[in-house]
Amino acid sequence: MRTGVWLVGARGSVATTSIVGALALRAGLTGPTGCVTELPGVRGPALPTFADMILGGHDVVTTPLAKRAESLAAAGVLPGRLVAALSEELAAVERELRPAPSAGTQADRAAAIAHDLTDFRQRHGLPCVVVVNVAATEPAPRPHPGHADPAALRAALAGPDEVLPPSSLYGYAAVTTGCPYVDFTPSTGLRLPALAALADAHRVPYAGHDGKTGETLIKSVLAPMFAMRHLAVRSWSGVNLLGGGDGATLADPAANAAKVRSKQRVLGETLGYLPQGGSRIEYVEELGDFKTAWDLVTFAGFLGTGMRLEFSWHGCDSALAAPLVLDLARLTAAAQATGVAGPLTDLAFFFKDPLGDPSHALADQWARLCALAHRLHSGGADAPPH
Amino acid sequence: MRTGVWLVGARGSVATTSIVGALALRAGLTGPTGCVTELPGVRGPALPTFADMILGGHDVVTTPLAKRAESLAAAGVLPGRLVAALSEELAAVERELRPAPSAGTQADRAAAIAHDLTDFRQRHGLPCVVVVNVAATEPAPRPHPGHADPAALRAALAGPDEVLPPSSLYGYAAVTTGCPYVDFTPSTGLRLPALAALADAHRVPYAGHDGKTGETLIKSVLAPMFAMRHLAVRSWSGVNLLGGGDGATLADPAANAAKVRSKQRVLGETLGYLPQGGSRIEYVEELGDFKTAWDLVTFAGFLGTGMRLEFSWHGCDSALAAPLVLDLARLTAAAQATGVAGPLTDLAFFFKDPLGDPSHALADQWARLCALAHRLHSGGADAPPH
Amino acid sequence: MRTGVWLVGARGSVATTSIVGALALRAGLTGPTGCVTELPGVRGPALPTFADMILGGHDVVTTPLAKRAESLAAAGVLPGRLVAALSEELAAVERELRPAPSAGTQADRAAAIAHDLTDFRQRHGLPCVVVVNVAATEPAPRPHPGHADPAALRAALAGPDEVLPPSSLYGYAAVTTGCPYVDFTPSTGLRLPALAALADAHRVPYAGHDGKTGETLIKSVLAPMFAMRHLAVRSWSGVNLLGGGDGATLADPAANAAKVRSKQRVLGETLGYLPQGGSRIEYVEELGDFKTAWDLVTFAGFLGTGMRLEFSWHGCDSALAAPLVLDLARLTAAAQATGVAGPLTDLAFFFKDPLGDPSHALADQWARLCALAHRLHSGGADAPPH
Amino acid sequence: MRTGVWLVGARGSVATTSIVGALALRAGLTGPTGCVTELPGVRGPALPTFADMILGGHDVVTTPLAKRAESLAAAGVLPGRLVAALSEELAAVERELRPAPSAGTQADRAAAIAHDLTDFRQRHGLPCVVVVNVAATEPAPRPHPGHADPAALRAALAGPDEVLPPSSLYGYAAVTTGCPYVDFTPSTGLRLPALAALADAHRVPYAGHDGKTGETLIKSVLAPMFAMRHLAVRSWSGVNLLGGGDGATLADPAANAAKVRSKQRVLGETLGYLPQGGSRIEYVEELGDFKTAWDLVTFAGFLGTGMRLEFSWHGCDSALAAPLVLDLARLTAAAQATGVAGPLTDLAFFFKDPLGDPSHALADQWARLCALAHRLHSGGADAPPH
Repeated sequence: MRTGVWLVGARGSVATTSIVGALALRAGLTGPTGCVTELPGVRGPALPTFADMILGGHDVVTTPLAKRAESLAAAGVLPGRLVAALSEELAAVERELRPAPSAGTQADRAAAIAHDLTDFRQRHGLPCVVVVNVAATEPAPRPHPGHADPAALRAALAGPDEVLPPSSLYGYAAVTTGCPYVDFTPSTGLRLPALAALADAHRVPYAGHDGKTGETLIKSVLAPMFAMRHLAVRSWSGVNLLGGGDGATLADPAANAAKVRSKQRVLGETLGYLPQGGSRIEYVEELGDFKTAWDLVTFAGFLGTGMRLEFSWHGCDSALAAPLVLDLARLTAAAQATGVAGPLTDLAFFFKDPLGDPSHALADQWARLCALAHRLHSGGADAPPH
Repeated sequence: MRTGVWLVGARGSVATTSIVGALALRAGLTGPTGCVTELPGVRGPALPTFADMILGGHDVVTTPLAKRAESLAAAGVLPGRLVAALSEELAAVERELRPAPSAGTQADRAAAIAHDLTDFRQRHGLPCVVVVNVAATEPAPRPHPGHADPAALRAALAGPDEVLPPSSLYGYAAVTTGCPYVDFTPSTGLRLPALAALADAHRVPYAGHDGKTGETLIKSVLAPMFAMRHLAVRSWSGVNLLGGGDGATLADPAANAAKVRSKQRVLGETLGYLPQGGSRIEYVEELGDFKTAWDLVTFAGFLGTGMRLEFSWHGCDSALAAPLVLDLARLTAAAQATGVAGPLTDLAFFFKDPLGDPSHALADQWARLCALAHRLHSGGADAPPH
Repeated sequence: MRTGVWLVGARGSVATTSIVGALALRAGLTGPTGCVTELPGVRGPALPTFADMILGGHDVVTTPLAKRAESLAAAGVLPGRLVAALSEELAAVERELRPAPSAGTQADRAAAIAHDLTDFRQRHGLPCVVVVNVAATEPAPRPHPGHADPAALRAALAGPDEVLPPSSLYGYAAVTTGCPYVDFTPSTGLRLPALAALADAHRVPYAGHDGKTGETLIKSVLAPMFAMRHLAVRSWSGVNLLGGGDGATLADPAANAAKVRSKQRVLGETLGYLPQGGSRIEYVEELGDFKTAWDLVTFAGFLGTGMRLEFSWHGCDSALAAPLVLDLARLTAAAQATGVAGPLTDLAFFFKDPLGDPSHALADQWARLCALAHRLHSGGADAPPH
Repeated sequence: MRTGVWLVGARGSVATTSIVGALALRAGLTGPTGCVTELPGVRGPALPTFADMILGGHDVVTTPLAKRAESLAAAGVLPGRLVAALSEELAAVERELRPAPSAGTQADRAAAIAHDLTDFRQRHGLPCVVVVNVAATEPAPRPHPGHADPAALRAALAGPDEVLPPSSLYGYAAVTTGCPYVDFTPSTGLRLPALAALADAHRVPYAGHDGKTGETLIKSVLAPMFAMRHLAVRSWSGVNLLGGGDGATLADPAANAAKVRSKQRVLGETLGYLPQGGSRIEYVEELGDFKTAWDLVTFAGFLGTGMRLEFSWHGCDSALAAPLVLDLARLTAAAQATGVAGPLTDLAFFFKDPLGDPSHALADQWARLCALAHRLHSGGADAPPH
């Protein structure tokens, strides 16, 4: 099943790594390390293959994709030989990228986005185009009456206000065009009543929020461990040092707050109480696309004996995120093909701040993912959307 | 249901902490932090309460229990106020401790052990006495023809050879007396054909091996995390620095080898391949009952990008082990009461080197533990012993 | 030489530990671990002995010293046996503690402080009373015209304004009474033109600021290491997790800023450039008197190869600070006895934010400390003040 | 002053990095990061410039230098652009490399080595050729009567025995040809009575042993810190995980023992007592030329309070060692030119296991290095050899 993957923020690190990776997989130049949808329990006939994926996207910047890929290779994120070997394929994707619409009212911009999506779908004859937001994290938007319902929203968008933050405007354009929407960031996306209603009305599946690629991934296995062993976590403090585009964005206190909030959710919901301490994000430009997270957990065992665990995670966000972007595109496309619509709460495995009220324990999330995959592969016959 | 708990190595750190803890729980002086059998999903009516537990045991050393408890309090393992408050109760347990039989053939010693177990059971009118081995780790025994089957074993024990290592001799005495047997150490215990056959013949349940209290506990959640994310673990190296009695014992290369082997099992079986690196144990007397484990994991993500995770675990082995000793006694007693016999493979949650061929992923082990608890609480009606 | 040690903040953790320690040393119940003035190169006849020290102080709180000591023993900072053995001696010190004067103008309060100091000196017949500030960190004060010179200051203090922060008011009372003054905190102390002039006029020696007990201590050896090896430090990021009184105070952003600034000074001045990254303080009440600092250093070697160093420091601030408080009292008293006055820049070894413009490399600071000690022990004959 | 640098193990990682680095410095393509001899206090007119250095060497393997450099570039040790830009210069060095002599008696081999050294010196008209051993670590040799004095050695070398390990045979050839000799490894080198006597007789300076590039470098600043603060180090345990050629060699227990012994020397000699714990080397091939060292230090402060420090060092041995190789060649050549001969104990700054009985504190070693440099730059007039 040929499937479009439309990346919002298409020239960023995550998107570029996703594109190079998809092209390399298609060309047989690399293996699927990091791709969850290639594991037993998840893989299967309902998912579009890597060769089926057609890539495109929007961005506000204009750095050529090839140049971005070369920078990532120089920084050790991508292998230089892949970038060199895929120059023609990258040039082909370059031709599918469009500047982010910026003129007129938000209604005008939404229409321009929708036009680009429709044009992409038609030119390539694609039954499905999944829109994936991998743009920089936004601050939380101010409340606006237009957020309440579709009619109010439509009216407000035609006016002069900035009613929706960019992630939501793309979401609006996606769902009203019938495209599934995945928010890989902590931004607002479809988390407004008007947009959720629109998604339901258009019967599109959607997923989010905030790809789980580092500290929170580890928390989602360590916190259940403490819980299953009945150990009392007294404090859990973390610091995330990151460079790269997202680091600079998160230096903005409002964006930082959104991200930090989603990072702590796993603890309270898994342990049943919130330990002392917090999680902090610091921008250190020198670290580039690599991120170091350090966490200290202090806990009490039997008879109150104090103990501690520390971990340091030195990860490459783009290398961790990119295969998940492809996974989510595959799963969401399969969901749409099978008639599953609405919030895909069974994809909590991928997110720091998942839709719905799911378990934050990774093993539970894995079980739900496998169950969803099973339903998709068996045609969705017995699949209630939930 | 009143239940005897007979500790082999009853004057060691783990046993002393188990005893003080059980007494403190019975007296309402502490809460059940660290006790898995008090968690929703596991707790229930089939388990003996802490007040139901009668404690006794064997040891080769003669340090008074109260003195051992005071040393542990001075070292920060036990709260001094508990030890002071429980002096009478500790004296009562002291009267239930017996010197480890050491005279005569192994048959004579087994008979002396069995006599002590039977005497304990009768004096207290106990329907069940669970024997738990928390003595120091032994080296692997030399092969002996007596290991092959019960008849050969019986004949060999009557001779002059040291046919069985101590953990197995206690296991022999336990099962032939109808007592469930739990091996909390990496020692041999019932892992000899003759002893497994005897346990089956006497219809006693048994569990083991090697309580999972530190580095391996963490491995059992982190390794599944890497597997579920399809990340390629390239190396996993660890070092365990420990003082205390077990540290000194493990300085013996043969014992070290046994422990290290059980520590690595989780990686190979969870990941499906064995990464480079190993796990090493070093004795540092100064650390006392606390243990520091440090692990470095290097792994590859999408397109081969190299990343790494380090963790340091600073735990108190006795404080982690003691509540599990009580948990295992409760569960094993309930199993016997419900008619479940043979190897309790559903207790893999507690062990580094579990019986049978179970998953090493902690979440899977938790699910099996909950299922077992459910069967026990519902009377075992539908419970095939497996 | 009998010497008074007057502690501002005398009921805090650092002061209580200093008092218990001095009493224990006097009674021969402990050794001088952590006391720099007992090392070869520093020790000698000019320093008052521990038996010579008479302790007193001010505090705004009224918790009995014995109770504070018991809390510290319960938290593992002090050995309980020492606190028990020294109850009489602690009661004697308790009688030397005075409530911090709080009524009237700042001139009134300064007079009340001076009265308490003079009374202490006279009752005990002390040739010298050293005032040591170990009270909680203050925010930086607002500029005030009274800070400019002694005359302006005297006039301003008689008015209704809060001209001086507490650390400076104590410093004012100390120097005008002829008492040496040591600021162990990052607060203002004598760092105002009027107060420096007064200290010079009264010929008293003084020292500060901000005792070097953890992360900065390590920086003061690691940063010179990078410099001596010509390695290019690209980023140096740190986080300090601390509970206890100081932690709560430093949660105040203004106080935090003062402390963080003094922590970074060592890097810029040792390396000759300021790497990226910063040092942050987080309050985690659960950690109590213990502090965990974690630092990540990224650096480039030959041909630009990127490397990294991480460290975690788990220290007890009171146990690290208290012996230095005694060291500083001994050295400052000896300085006054030898006729050395003004800022004791040769004591940079003890401080994060030392007076003057000294090297921040610990080895250089050690050499200067030894040279000062040598001058003091040889009677100060050839001793230019600094 | 044109100077030959003859590398034993010339095709290994350290040598290749030294060669590429020297060529890049000569060509102005890189800066001197990591080169101690470019720092104020050490640099000066007595040292040969990078442009003055002519490179050559022996190796037992035959991998082309360019290929080795490309592998190092692929592993992130060298920048690929440098390797590409210097291909002609590398080819020129390739022509100066000779196979390690391997035929005949040890006397024959020594003569062949000496012939290669003399030929190199004459072809390039070099006043001085420094021989630097950067070959793999050897096990300690068996005692042999030929080690006792030059005459016995000469006689023994002519026989069939393997009298000298390779590092010593190269040392023999070097000193008897008048070439200064630097041992950058823990191997034996000139540490045999016969060889030391020969070096003295031929008036050549020499230096060693075992370049200080990681864990020991950090110990040499942290151990003095604990000493200067009078803190009682209770245990110091370390593990070194390393891949690369040296890692494989050190997996040999005998070589490991030599290295570990030199690593611990710094602790005992700096602290005045030997803490518990040890330092261990593990081979993890996957780590390649990078090395991770982790150390845990437990220590007691005032009144016995227990504290701890952990550090992780993730370094690239070749990138750390190569600039020191160039430094040592420059300094040793300058020493010979100034008439300084015998063991250069003032170069302890560079070594884990320095010659003589110097301080192991890095700051002291730095002071001695600066003093030596000063003597060399002022013509050595007032320069007693050490």
